[in-house]
Amino acid sequence: MIKNKDPIKKIEIDGLDFKIFKSGIKKNNTDLLLVTFPKFSSISGVFTKSKTPSAAVIDCKKKINFKNRSIRCLLVNSGNANAFTGLKGTKTVNKITKFLSNLYNCDENEVFSSSTGVIGEELKPSKIISCIKNKKPVFENSIEEAAKSIMTTDTFPKYYISKVKYKNFEVNVIGIAKGSGMIAPNMGTMLAYIFTDLNVSSKVLQKILINENDKTFNSITVDSDTSTSDTCLLISTNQLKNKKINNFNDKFLNNFKKCISNIMLDLAKQIVIDGEGAKKIIEIRVENAKSISSAKNIAFSIANSPLVKTAIAGEDANWGRIVMAIGKSYESIDQNKIKIKFGKNLVTKNGMRYSKYSEKNLSEYLKNKEISILIDIGMGNHKWTVYTCDLTEQYIRINADYRS
Amino acid sequence: MIKNKDPIKKIEIDGLDFKIFKSGIKKNNTDLLLVTFPKFSSISGVFTKSKTPSAAVIDCKKKINFKNRSIRCLLVNSGNANAFTGLKGTKTVNKITKFLSNLYNCDENEVFSSSTGVIGEELKPSKIISCIKNKKPVFENSIEEAAKSIMTTDTFPKYYISKVKYKNFEVNVIGIAKGSGMIAPNMGTMLAYIFTDLNVSSKVLQKILINENDKTFNSITVDSDTSTSDTCLLISTNQLKNKKINNFNDKFLNNFKKCISNIMLDLAKQIVIDGEGAKKIIEIRVENAKSISSAKNIAFSIANSPLVKTAIAGEDANWGRIVMAIGKSYESIDQNKIKIKFGKNLVTKNGMRYSKYSEKNLSEYLKNKEISILIDIGMGNHKWTVYTCDLTEQYIRINADYRS
Repeated sequence: MIKNKDPIKKIEIDGLDFKIFKSGIKKNNTDLLLVTFPKFSSISGVFTKSKTPSAAVIDCKKKINFKNRSIRCLLVNSGNANAFTGLKGTKTVNKITKFLSNLYNCDENEVFSSSTGVIGEELKPSKIISCIKNKKPVFENSIEEAAKSIMTTDTFPKYYISKVKYKNFEVNVIGIAKGSGMIAPNMGTMLAYIFTDLNVSSKVLQKILINENDKTFNSITVDSDTSTSDTCLLISTNQLKNKKINNFNDKFLNNFKKCISNIMLDLAKQIVIDGEGAKKIIEIRVENAKSISSAKNIAFSIANSPLVKTAIAGEDANWGRIVMAIGKSYESIDQNKIKIKFGKNLVTKNGMRYSKYSEKNLSEYLKNKEISILIDIGMGNHKWTVYTCDLTEQYIRINADYRS
Repeated sequence: MIKNKDPIKKIEIDGLDFKIFKSGIKKNNTDLLLVTFPKFSSISGVFTKSKTPSAAVIDCKKKINFKNRSIRCLLVNSGNANAFTGLKGTKTVNKITKFLSNLYNCDENEVFSSSTGVIGEELKPSKIISCIKNKKPVFENSIEEAAKSIMTTDTFPKYYISKVKYKNFEVNVIGIAKGSGMIAPNMGTMLAYIFTDLNVSSKVLQKILINENDKTFNSITVDSDTSTSDTCLLISTNQLKNKKINNFNDKFLNNFKKCISNIMLDLAKQIVIDGEGAKKIIEIRVENAKSISSAKNIAFSIANSPLVKTAIAGEDANWGRIVMAIGKSYESIDQNKIKIKFGKNLVTKNGMRYSKYSEKNLSEYLKNKEISILIDIGMGNHKWTVYTCDLTEQYIRINADYRS
């Protein structure tokens, strides 16, 4: 599923600089990623909809709303989410921002940050500032090490490297992400950062990001829990020599949009595969629904059902649970029109078990690592796809015993 | 928590008759409960909101909507839900109904039924009809055995016996229920039946049932999955000699209403305690919310969070997950006003960890079998309480490996 993973680990984007530190927030690993950009780099962002967002998310959201926004510096720490830390949390972000804006001689609005880790514990700005001031980076400009430095309970670093044409220019795109559940044990967050050199305005980037986010990062679920810190930023150093793109509908942009879509979907799937305790990735396609929102609700109702996910973990051909999950979406449907397919195995037709249904074949299919479920609602022409993973005993073990 | 459990197992309600059979739908246990009532017995009912309801639920809903409804006969089978069985499922209900209306010489609209068990498998009416025609009941008029006969993955039978005064009359009330998850492995359903002898109209019973259902059966969750077959019926034989009660606001009814509320809450809690794999019962009280619906949404967002439930299973003082779950309710709140208490332990104040918070005390508290969590939103004066259980590895084991 993860294609195109280039062995090249060094970044190939002009003007992009990664510094990776061990600040001591995590006990043993790197925990600080400092990224710097040339002047007037473009930025776009989407964030968690949680009503208890972290201090960094509140700060980023404010800055993304500036009309002529740009970015010079991004700081990400792992090990502490700086969420539910009250006014102290806000002060921490402000102190770090002030320090970095002085260091890089830029406006405070050009400094962005993210935090991921434990909720409710104070994040000391002094630790981060003194690390950047006094310590040497452990790594520089390695994509894999950048991805590693933002990990919490992830079991592998998540990144993707790609190239795409814009007119005659070769555009570079790289993405890194972390996440292992919408929220990991005692910690929060899915984070993703996508970098490019295409010369493109923040406004156009923002539209691309919002468009692609819905079908990628917003269409995955591990355990239905939403983090306080989810952040996805799409940033360009603008160092490519193409004429600045200010028009979202520029037809030459289509390849680039597709490339961003691919990178986001790939990173999203990497997060699902690394879902806590997961052994299988499940694709749930809902077709012929009355509306997109109806298709989406039905798909998520199935994807978030613990009973569907445990049945798949146990390779149990218990498709009645899919019926139950369609029912609890409360979408208006006609039971007798629903078709359910697992891979190529038609399971139901006319609101009941398909006459040629074979439990043996379905059980065989469920041994696969990638399970594809199709629900044909038979009432319209709208569709949506959601990705999730199975729910195993390992999930409980990771999340119950994390601190003991 | 389960108080008042009377050792008396024989029913003490005039006109109520239980017959309990082994029809063979289940391999080894009783699986058929046939209850008969005198002429003009009153009935009220509430049902699952699932959009894939079982054939029996569709039939009951229709009959409950008759203006002058009454009941003569109730048939409940376990082992097969008769859900997602298309037109065949409807025919099965009709055949059974016809047979019973002939047997008891009553209108088909006076025959009610429920089914619980596997979804999507055909329920043969002949098996049930020939059992009632030809076999002898295994038990008669035992409350405990009636409760046992409707069990699926329940580990104990659920019932409650009570008495209450209406003016100078002693009113008898008994309730039986089943459920071990909103939907149990491969099976569906929470079912509850409450019987009384108070002379009261169906209309008044219906109002009482709807009023009390919200705060009891509708305020519990095991795994957030909604069954195709949830049914709760409140039925009176009307054999008590009091003058028929036609007025819901009759002030002498208050004790009876309170009694129904108690019995429903007790049965609801019995279901939560028997939640698949559960070791702890968790009470989540949300207070000082902007509205009742806001309090309810926040309480359910916490109660349905797998990460909250696994932390409690692991006795892990990971209260940041409560913060996360409040955030993902998407209710409008002010983080800085939220207070969280576990039992007597104040955990947060002013949007951050309480200065005198003691992880040691909280960890100690979490060893209890009954956990009480209070969330003070600090924005209004509305409240709601929800009951759930912890999420253990046993839940996964039961639900993944059920058919292997």
